[in-house]
Amino acid sequence: MQALVIKGGGVTTPQGFKAGVAKAGIKSQDRYDLALVVSEEPAAGAAVFTTNKFAAAPVQLSKKHLAQGGFFRGFVVNSGCANACTGEKGLVDAFQMAQTAAGVIGCSPGEFLVASTGVVGVDLPMEAVRRAIGEAGNRLSVEAGSLAAEAIMTTDTFAKEIALQIELDGQKVLLGGMAKGAGMIHPNMATMLALVTTDAAISPACLQEALRRANDASFNMVTVDGDTSTNDTVVVLANGRAGNPLLEDTANPGFELFCEALKEVCQALAKMIARDGEGATKLLEVQVVNAPGPEDARKAARAIAGSTLLKAALFGEDANWGRIICALGYSGARFEPDRVDVYLGGLLVARNGAGASFSEEEAGKLLAKEEIRIVVDLQAGDAAATAWGCDLSYEYVRINADYRS
Amino acid sequence: MQALVIKGGGVTTPQGFKAGVAKAGIKSQDRYDLALVVSEEPAAGAAVFTTNKFAAAPVQLSKKHLAQGGFFRGFVVNSGCANACTGEKGLVDAFQMAQTAAGVIGCSPGEFLVASTGVVGVDLPMEAVRRAIGEAGNRLSVEAGSLAAEAIMTTDTFAKEIALQIELDGQKVLLGGMAKGAGMIHPNMATMLALVTTDAAISPACLQEALRRANDASFNMVTVDGDTSTNDTVVVLANGRAGNPLLEDTANPGFELFCEALKEVCQALAKMIARDGEGATKLLEVQVVNAPGPEDARKAARAIAGSTLLKAALFGEDANWGRIICALGYSGARFEPDRVDVYLGGLLVARNGAGASFSEEEAGKLLAKEEIRIVVDLQAGDAAATAWGCDLSYEYVRINADYRS
Repeated sequence: MQALVIKGGGVTTPQGFKAGVAKAGIKSQDRYDLALVVSEEPAAGAAVFTTNKFAAAPVQLSKKHLAQGGFFRGFVVNSGCANACTGEKGLVDAFQMAQTAAGVIGCSPGEFLVASTGVVGVDLPMEAVRRAIGEAGNRLSVEAGSLAAEAIMTTDTFAKEIALQIELDGQKVLLGGMAKGAGMIHPNMATMLALVTTDAAISPACLQEALRRANDASFNMVTVDGDTSTNDTVVVLANGRAGNPLLEDTANPGFELFCEALKEVCQALAKMIARDGEGATKLLEVQVVNAPGPEDARKAARAIAGSTLLKAALFGEDANWGRIICALGYSGARFEPDRVDVYLGGLLVARNGAGASFSEEEAGKLLAKEEIRIVVDLQAGDAAATAWGCDLSYEYVRINADYRS
Repeated sequence: MQALVIKGGGVTTPQGFKAGVAKAGIKSQDRYDLALVVSEEPAAGAAVFTTNKFAAAPVQLSKKHLAQGGFFRGFVVNSGCANACTGEKGLVDAFQMAQTAAGVIGCSPGEFLVASTGVVGVDLPMEAVRRAIGEAGNRLSVEAGSLAAEAIMTTDTFAKEIALQIELDGQKVLLGGMAKGAGMIHPNMATMLALVTTDAAISPACLQEALRRANDASFNMVTVDGDTSTNDTVVVLANGRAGNPLLEDTANPGFELFCEALKEVCQALAKMIARDGEGATKLLEVQVVNAPGPEDARKAARAIAGSTLLKAALFGEDANWGRIICALGYSGARFEPDRVDVYLGGLLVARNGAGASFSEEEAGKLLAKEEIRIVVDLQAGDAAATAWGCDLSYEYVRINADYRS
């Protein structure tokens, strides 16, 4: 696909989207912790949410809004407080966030999707949140897109944004995205929030299917620490401003093109999340090839990327391929142990399930890099999958030892 | 049950068992790294093994020996090298360990069970191993039981031993056990090796059933880092020296007594493994009560004990109960989120799925202890389960960043 990356682009790069941010002072007084992203006209919406049984109040509310209608005016989000395990009050607070945002824009509360991220079990300071939503709503601009990406950060060390341009039926179509990640990152999904905006014209049903596919190949293939949070949310809003013929049939060739572009946006954000895993010093990419089926490839790639022991070995730049093999062995994937080859950054380290002779010096050089690619060849079929993760450092422990304080 | 703990006891406490150790110099020259535990007469044997598809050579061999016959003369084990992912040579080496041990004792190789623990993908130095087996076999003694527990250590910081005395049909019966744990500890099972000896008279089939039950309530409920190794092995040998009427029917009341005692030995060893998790500073015990079924209780307890985020919070002595709730939420257990109560060392920290008001000072005192007990009440039935784990410290990362070197 010919997707053009728009430098410095984000959620307000697609036509008709604006953002606004404010300081509600939820966890700290000195930073933006509230963001609104608004479409000038109703946008088709799709979303995927955490599978955690303790779904946070904003997750419950957004699910309800999504079930009630396919079109939305915007997304309101705060960081610093997850509004999870907050009982009835939490549900009321989440609704008030939607209601306040809707009041500023002039739409109904049901046209807003809501997300929160931060500490679990603490109530939102609603007076400050309402005030901040009002402020953010009164200063909507295209320029504030990057500030919105900043406002959703928690222990993230950099804001995560991307924008792409593609062509659909001769029309220029833009997609923009922002995400926050850092801790609690694990398939299905992560304390990760992501919002993707696009000016493509696409039906809500097609958008949901495109998101399902993109999510499976991106956010669901990222692991930082194996914990699936209460708040994971990925939202896509598509306002049709690009003027392409409406994508309303998954058999339309344009739909495939759109899916590819959405996957590219989501994978770019997913990799940024892995690279910025709490305390991470390295990005790990695990490709499993020649698996008997896609689920085998996915299970194997995720188990390897998620192995605590391997992650610690990578931090130490130790070519301990036994830990790759070990994680593969408990992944649940189907394969024959004596047919497995393992490559570390292109270097063959295990062949047919046993150690290959390789240069420790060369392995050391590959491990010293900031991006480490592991390829596992199962020689058992033709399915493949890629997962992303990071190393496990002292810093991860430090960050999580006193996250609340 | 009236089980008496024998101070300083271990695998040679039961009658008719002796041990011998030697230095094969596998990873270091200065320590015992090879042990033999031998019964004076054939002992009924039972074992459970890793579920990892890359089962190490000694695991494959021991499974075969177990399938061929129910009686054994001994157990031979080395540390420093896992003899895993070593292909055909690995299988030959494992067999040679059994053969050499059998030669010293005067029995057939099939009467030995074999285990190895250490680095994956490296061949055993067989000449040194054969010599060491010979040496260990020539100095068998009751006194060397504790040395055997030392010889199987890898990154363990203390040797793990226990012995109990019970009464079966008026006869004094002894059980002794040793284990190694430390890293790669996870249900089904752990890089953990354990050997339990007993002078009870019990049939191989009953012994296997007793071990299955004990293992499910002990080693399968311990997690250190979520990695299931290639070498996990738990062996029980019962030589009948106590002279109790043979337990050969699971309906025999004596069988239940024996099961309880075996469970007690295995749980004691499992807790030592958790307490000595790599880098651990605290032992974590998670009890899930009032679950709808035993599997729900087990899943919930294990997910909580295994949460990386919770483990880091415990290291930091942070009463972040949201992480307990979060792990429960993704555990797969059945429950109603708004009925869940959480206790931290007896202190109610969450009630009906939301935060309870509690004294942070009191919580801080409880978290400063070396043993932390979490109770989660699902209010959804009457099943219960207990899992053990430990905190995640800087030291875990340090140990695993350069394990091979």
